[in-house]
Amino acid sequence: MTRVSDADPIYLDYNASTPVLPEVVDAMLPYLREHFGNPSSGHPYGLRAREAVARARAQVAALLGCQPDEIVFTSGGTEANNLAIRGVAEVAGARRHVITSTAEHPATAQPCAYLERHGFEVDRVPVDREGRVAADAVRRGLRDDTALVTVMLAQNETGALMPIPDLAEIAHRRGAVVHADAAQAVGKIPTRVDDLGVDLLSIAGHKLYAPKGVGALYVRRGTRLAPVVLGAGHERGLRPGTENVPFIVALGQACEVARRDLATESARQRDLRDDLWRRLCAAVPGVSLNGHPTARLPNTLNVSFPGARGSAVLAAAPEIAASTGSACHEGGETASAVLLAMGLGPEVALGAVRLSLGRLTTADDVAAAADALARAYREVA
Amino acid sequence: MTRVSDADPIYLDYNASTPVLPEVVDAMLPYLREHFGNPSSGHPYGLRAREAVARARAQVAALLGCQPDEIVFTSGGTEANNLAIRGVAEVAGARRHVITSTAEHPATAQPCAYLERHGFEVDRVPVDREGRVAADAVRRGLRDDTALVTVMLAQNETGALMPIPDLAEIAHRRGAVVHADAAQAVGKIPTRVDDLGVDLLSIAGHKLYAPKGVGALYVRRGTRLAPVVLGAGHERGLRPGTENVPFIVALGQACEVARRDLATESARQRDLRDDLWRRLCAAVPGVSLNGHPTARLPNTLNVSFPGARGSAVLAAAPEIAASTGSACHEGGETASAVLLAMGLGPEVALGAVRLSLGRLTTADDVAAAADALARAYREVA
Repeated sequence: MTRVSDADPIYLDYNASTPVLPEVVDAMLPYLREHFGNPSSGHPYGLRAREAVARARAQVAALLGCQPDEIVFTSGGTEANNLAIRGVAEVAGARRHVITSTAEHPATAQPCAYLERHGFEVDRVPVDREGRVAADAVRRGLRDDTALVTVMLAQNETGALMPIPDLAEIAHRRGAVVHADAAQAVGKIPTRVDDLGVDLLSIAGHKLYAPKGVGALYVRRGTRLAPVVLGAGHERGLRPGTENVPFIVALGQACEVARRDLATESARQRDLRDDLWRRLCAAVPGVSLNGHPTARLPNTLNVSFPGARGSAVLAAAPEIAASTGSACHEGGETASAVLLAMGLGPEVALGAVRLSLGRLTTADDVAAAADALARAYREVA
Repeated sequence: MTRVSDADPIYLDYNASTPVLPEVVDAMLPYLREHFGNPSSGHPYGLRAREAVARARAQVAALLGCQPDEIVFTSGGTEANNLAIRGVAEVAGARRHVITSTAEHPATAQPCAYLERHGFEVDRVPVDREGRVAADAVRRGLRDDTALVTVMLAQNETGALMPIPDLAEIAHRRGAVVHADAAQAVGKIPTRVDDLGVDLLSIAGHKLYAPKGVGALYVRRGTRLAPVVLGAGHERGLRPGTENVPFIVALGQACEVARRDLATESARQRDLRDDLWRRLCAAVPGVSLNGHPTARLPNTLNVSFPGARGSAVLAAAPEIAASTGSACHEGGETASAVLLAMGLGPEVALGAVRLSLGRLTTADDVAAAADALARAYREVA
């Protein structure tokens, strides 16, 4: 279990943030405690830090199936998305059109809105009832002046997987650059950039058992990009600021673990997740699945409780820690915009609970969570 | 000593990066190992993370003498400067003029150059022979449409202290916002924002015995600012992205230590630094000091060796780890732009070595470093 103590609820909110794996902490600790040099320094302290960053870059590249020099480290997924979207736009010249989807995270939606305020046209292709973008909708939206297509690989609330390889092929035919926010996907499903066909791909450490505060952007060789944050020439001029050596080491180690365990962990979590769904179906008549039944992250289960608010169900189930949607929107009593964009009614959207499993989730957790949710539902429905 | 092992050189490059203090590591470790929640999550895991961020915010505010809600956490000093400079410009309306200095770090100079490419006029006031900006030069440069005056509090290569309180008073009279990059100053000299009179002040964790990859911007209440990186609504809408909880905790702890030890450590380091200077004067005829003799950071000693390159002296002194200038410009054989801007000749600038002391520097370190530098100089001169 993920609990810190027995008094803690069962953690089913891995899509909000993951714990840092002990082997990831162990890998980074020497770079917090001893090897504190600035990677730009010419002396041995700097050299050690520089070597550590190079090793981590190779580890991230190995998971994505790219070259180390195609990895730019950032402070997280949000910054990676900003660099991708606004970085492409800055050098796009006469191409002033961007395609995105209606189901993006604010870390993509807000940079797109910024471009809209600064002379770009932005088209947002819809998602279907199961939360997916149709490649055909992107095809219809593409124009000769489309600079960028930015669509997430896996939706953070429903886990719905987008047809990125198809989108990429279509977009490239029209000369557009293709970016995928893969923050929720990396480590859960295969994310080799050549299989996906993307030019740019964002990673967030804390969705991947590395710490919060580090991420990376894959930048395919030849992709033109301008920095968003400006300063000294770190990261090939694309991301200034002294490198966060310990967390970069952590991200590298987390990517190595993800590569090693991807097949076994995704199968294991998928089985547990499907067991949780079967238990909820048996205990809660009318419970419905939000998102695609199969084209979905293996760890994610977004369900709507009929005739009850998801927030009320969770409040009545203190035995588990989950959320009604993205952690970035917690606190509101408004329905998820992502679920509404899928065409779900407000009542169904307000009934939603996101249950996201992870490496430390056990069969006992799932059984206990199903019981707690069923009991809570009976209390509040 | 700061060495990791006896084989390591004596570390005299604290201005490039500091080690993380053991008590800082200890404070943050629980937030790497156990309390991994997303501060935006509504459940107990989120609550614990949220409380930790709030405590750290209060610790940073206490060092700066401001309110906790005036602190915005960032990924480092570079991002803090970008947020300050471009954030003010974004909402400056008809004010299209910026004043900065010729001695700024690229983390300030590059955002200013960006503004220049986007319709702003930027004036760069010179520094004098001792590395300082004259308040009078700023007074003459101010215009009715000056949006921002951004001048560093302490110069990273020479340690020269800028007359920020005077500048701030002058600039405020004309309605300009005042920003100071205090990355090199915080923890070394008093930096209470009301004494300085600034509206915005940047901090970098790794110059302050916290890790690389975290920083903060002080934003005086009432100062209008737009975010630079765009996404969800974290940090009162000014800095999106899931908070780097462990490093924010570390920065808070480092600020608490800095506040506790400021007087004793700055006096101790000043004595050691002055001892190092006396020893160099005795051993190297003609050695010269770069920067102001007294209006200078207590830990910084920038000297020029006559008739020798600083890089050659350092290469011949493997017993110490220091630099010829900013770590962000290492590797080049070009003279420091900062020293040239002070009016030093190219030969003097190329002869420069920056020796920066820190909390772990001892009297033995200083004696050994002076001997090593004197011997190296005799070898290469």
